[in-house]
Amino acid sequence: MVKVAILGYGTVGSGVYEVLRKNAKSIKRKAGQDIDIKYIVDVREFPDHPESNLFIKDFNQVLEDDEVSIVVEVIGGIKPAYDFTKSALSAGKSVVTSNKELVATCGTELLNLALEKNVNYMFEASVGGGIPIIRPLHQCLAANEVTEIFGILNGTTNYILTKMIKEHQNFDDALSDAQAKGYAERNPAADVDGIDACRKITILSSLAFGKAVDANKVPTRGIRDVTLQDVKYAQKLGCVVKLIGHTKKEGERVFCEVSPMLVPNENPLSNVEDVFNAITVKGDSIGEVIFYGKGAGKLPTASAVVADIIDTSMHLHQNKFGAWKAVEGDFSIPEDEIASRVFVVVSSEDRENEKFKVRTLFGEDTDIIDNSSNETDFAFITGNMPLREVKEKLAAIGKVVKWMRVLENE
Amino acid sequence: MVKVAILGYGTVGSGVYEVLRKNAKSIKRKAGQDIDIKYIVDVREFPDHPESNLFIKDFNQVLEDDEVSIVVEVIGGIKPAYDFTKSALSAGKSVVTSNKELVATCGTELLNLALEKNVNYMFEASVGGGIPIIRPLHQCLAANEVTEIFGILNGTTNYILTKMIKEHQNFDDALSDAQAKGYAERNPAADVDGIDACRKITILSSLAFGKAVDANKVPTRGIRDVTLQDVKYAQKLGCVVKLIGHTKKEGERVFCEVSPMLVPNENPLSNVEDVFNAITVKGDSIGEVIFYGKGAGKLPTASAVVADIIDTSMHLHQNKFGAWKAVEGDFSIPEDEIASRVFVVVSSEDRENEKFKVRTLFGEDTDIIDNSSNETDFAFITGNMPLREVKEKLAAIGKVVKWMRVLENE
Repeated sequence: MVKVAILGYGTVGSGVYEVLRKNAKSIKRKAGQDIDIKYIVDVREFPDHPESNLFIKDFNQVLEDDEVSIVVEVIGGIKPAYDFTKSALSAGKSVVTSNKELVATCGTELLNLALEKNVNYMFEASVGGGIPIIRPLHQCLAANEVTEIFGILNGTTNYILTKMIKEHQNFDDALSDAQAKGYAERNPAADVDGIDACRKITILSSLAFGKAVDANKVPTRGIRDVTLQDVKYAQKLGCVVKLIGHTKKEGERVFCEVSPMLVPNENPLSNVEDVFNAITVKGDSIGEVIFYGKGAGKLPTASAVVADIIDTSMHLHQNKFGAWKAVEGDFSIPEDEIASRVFVVVSSEDRENEKFKVRTLFGEDTDIIDNSSNETDFAFITGNMPLREVKEKLAAIGKVVKWMRVLENE
Repeated sequence: MVKVAILGYGTVGSGVYEVLRKNAKSIKRKAGQDIDIKYIVDVREFPDHPESNLFIKDFNQVLEDDEVSIVVEVIGGIKPAYDFTKSALSAGKSVVTSNKELVATCGTELLNLALEKNVNYMFEASVGGGIPIIRPLHQCLAANEVTEIFGILNGTTNYILTKMIKEHQNFDDALSDAQAKGYAERNPAADVDGIDACRKITILSSLAFGKAVDANKVPTRGIRDVTLQDVKYAQKLGCVVKLIGHTKKEGERVFCEVSPMLVPNENPLSNVEDVFNAITVKGDSIGEVIFYGKGAGKLPTASAVVADIIDTSMHLHQNKFGAWKAVEGDFSIPEDEIASRVFVVVSSEDRENEKFKVRTLFGEDTDIIDNSSNETDFAFITGNMPLREVKEKLAAIGKVVKWMRVLENE
């Protein structure tokens, strides 16, 4: 029998409790032994809970109990999750988490601590909710040189963009709709500003390429500035606007970004709608593999946590996945060096003259779309070139309202 | 150091050799030790091979060599693969395979033998080529009650159907095209008659539900009878025709089938084109998860084999995944009990009268599409009902040219 303590009885924590209880029989069959919840640690009271006897308030009780070999950290945020995780690992307990903020921020330290203590720090639920991605990525990595990962990593923003694309709602209305449905928080910054997606791509990038990416240095743009007009331009250009987390490796350097992008209709990610997530992994042998599913939600996320608990229970004192490394110096590829086509919106009192300039700079056959609701704006897509080159050319154009990269997938 | 023997130096075998050599460094890092090829067993001569010293012809040499702990069976077919696998497992060696025919036919016996000997029989590459599906399915299964799996499991037929859908080629032309491109064999029966897909859904069903499904008893229809006209009807009805492997569990009974089906455009599988595969797994906690990628090919398949080799090397004398069970008695759900909408093509000299009968039997608002190139044929989609009921009603209709189930996805 393996004894676990659940830290935090919020949405995910109560889901973990539910899945462990509901599927106890099949979990035992998989794990080869019973997995028993010894404690649930939460500062709040749950007097009406059917197992209220499990609840305690002091994490030290867990730390000091040698019977507990797995700590399930589903508190979220850095404090006190970081301290709890660190002391649990130091005490030789494995930790399973859904806490993407902590993994993205302190994963390097915590993974290396787990490695040193020969226990596990597992975080399948931190990316993609219930979609198995971390463990399959290990599998892809085992026999492949993974070269690139891009994905729709945040369900809330994908829901908002889907509303804009399908129902031509503007951003504010779509956001209100998402809030009404409970998909977006009252303060939606972590989602709509790309922070959540940034944490996830940071984790995937660090894992895939083995070097700790600093989330704070990842160029991150959210979707607040995406207008209904952008969505319409995109449609005319055979694309949809999606918030994309993207990372790739070139030699020893790594590029990592979060940004709204134009995804061409041929790309399978263009069909990923509503709160669904999808992650494309490219490897030298495997080609392209896509993982798709609901990226959030109580039970999907809880089932990913429980899968980690089962796996950890079978490797209690054997570190399974290793750790990515802290690397000295800057190994990031500056965004300006990255080549792609770029979608550009221009505003000009003299639209025809400006379009002439665009064709001179970017080529005669540049695809240009007029804004049909005014006399000043138009949009176009550049050829495939480094962003620096696009910016240099754009300096000669009047008012550039906006640019967004096109997601390239050779 | 772990020593392996590769049985069969065909497409997959040479791919395994290539991946093991090319990625030796990262494989060592993952496996925690070197993985070395000690033998390649093939009846043919490869005198010009850079490591021709590895080739032997007698499998007994592998069997008797205690240094070899992993046998990679990539011969395909039942003979001699079955005998080799059985004797390897009996000798306490783990076996890794891409041989779907053998796993589908003799998997129960071989998995239970591996369990008994406390070694592993791994077959990630047998379904979905390079797409990680067997191991993620174990993960899904760990914390979920998996309820249903459906997927596009055969790239060749999906390529042919894509040509029919996108370019309005007829079946014969599309097949010739697939043969010219090397996607289809000169004798295409295993693909176009659904045999390959049947083996794969048999494996997935047995794995997901724990009971050995008999591939010979799985209702299996291929795509030879799918006409360009069917594809056109489907398009008008908001669907595409895809060859679907499907299994679901109801209580203690299991349904398993392979058949061309109408996949509604809303279903993500409708967008899976060319030689790509996609597999949808539904679970009680996880909701719906889809795995997508190239389902075949030398390097994708080889990379799945190598992922299994690495995993096995870390669990040499510890059976990891258990086995499905042989179950006495018939636990299959007869196809006639399965409810879905059904696409029906009718031919009648008196088309209007026949359509009147259809509306009387299936409801006034039944969606009926005329064949525009003749005066006799039309198609319609029934409501959601058991197939038996559809068949009973159809008995009252004149000439039913064909019927195909609609893939339902509640």
